[in-house]
Amino acid sequence: MSDEHEPRLCDSALVRAFDFLGKRWNGIILGSLLNGPASFSELRRGVVGISDSVLSERLVELSRAGLVTRRVDEGPPVAVSYTLTDAGLGLLPALRELTVWSSANLPVA
Amino acid sequence: MSDEHEPRLCDSALVRAFDFLGKRWNGIILGSLLNGPASFSELRRGVVGISDSVLSERLVELSRAGLVTRRVDEGPPVAVSYTLTDAGLGLLPALRELTVWSSANLPVA
Repeated sequence: MSDEHEPRLCDSALVRAFDFLGKRWNGIILGSLLNGPASFSELRRGVVGISDSVLSERLVELSRAGLVTRRVDEGPPVAVSYTLTDAGLGLLPALRELTVWSSANLPVA
Repeated sequence: MSDEHEPRLCDSALVRAFDFLGKRWNGIILGSLLNGPASFSELRRGVVGISDSVLSERLVELSRAGLVTRRVDEGPPVAVSYTLTDAGLGLLPALRELTVWSSANLPVA
């Protein structure tokens, strides 16, 4: 198939992106961290509706994926914060485009 | 709060984008149609794992959201195809960025 109707559907990289970022909260947590490091409680307050246990689980998952790092500042007081890796920061152009599109095209519920 | 740790979390437009596009298949169907119009059966073959009934339901939802239109070519033979509206086409920059990022950062399962 090479005519203009060829759908070239289901680009596997895009499917992986939606599977990963669309999983509840992953994309939002990463989006939140684009504005700079945040503590657990800042994330907890900011990501409306997430529970402590789910946020913990997602931060572990995002760390394992190499997108987020956990930083410990020995203080005093000891402070833990989460920050994006370079791979995580690489999402910025995509999230910016998504935000522009959403603002223009998806109604506020 | 205005220090560098201010998270400005949970940008509502981004949350809407992930809620809508992250809903299973919506983003993938739109991504598929970025390559041009497709018939129902082309979409069905391309979006691996989707059922006829879910694809129908999603196409109605995407039409109602003003992102997809259903075109009927009276033929003969009669042919129905689905195509993106301008609002749907507006997703192209975001999906392109997501694909680039995913290719570089999300492992193939």
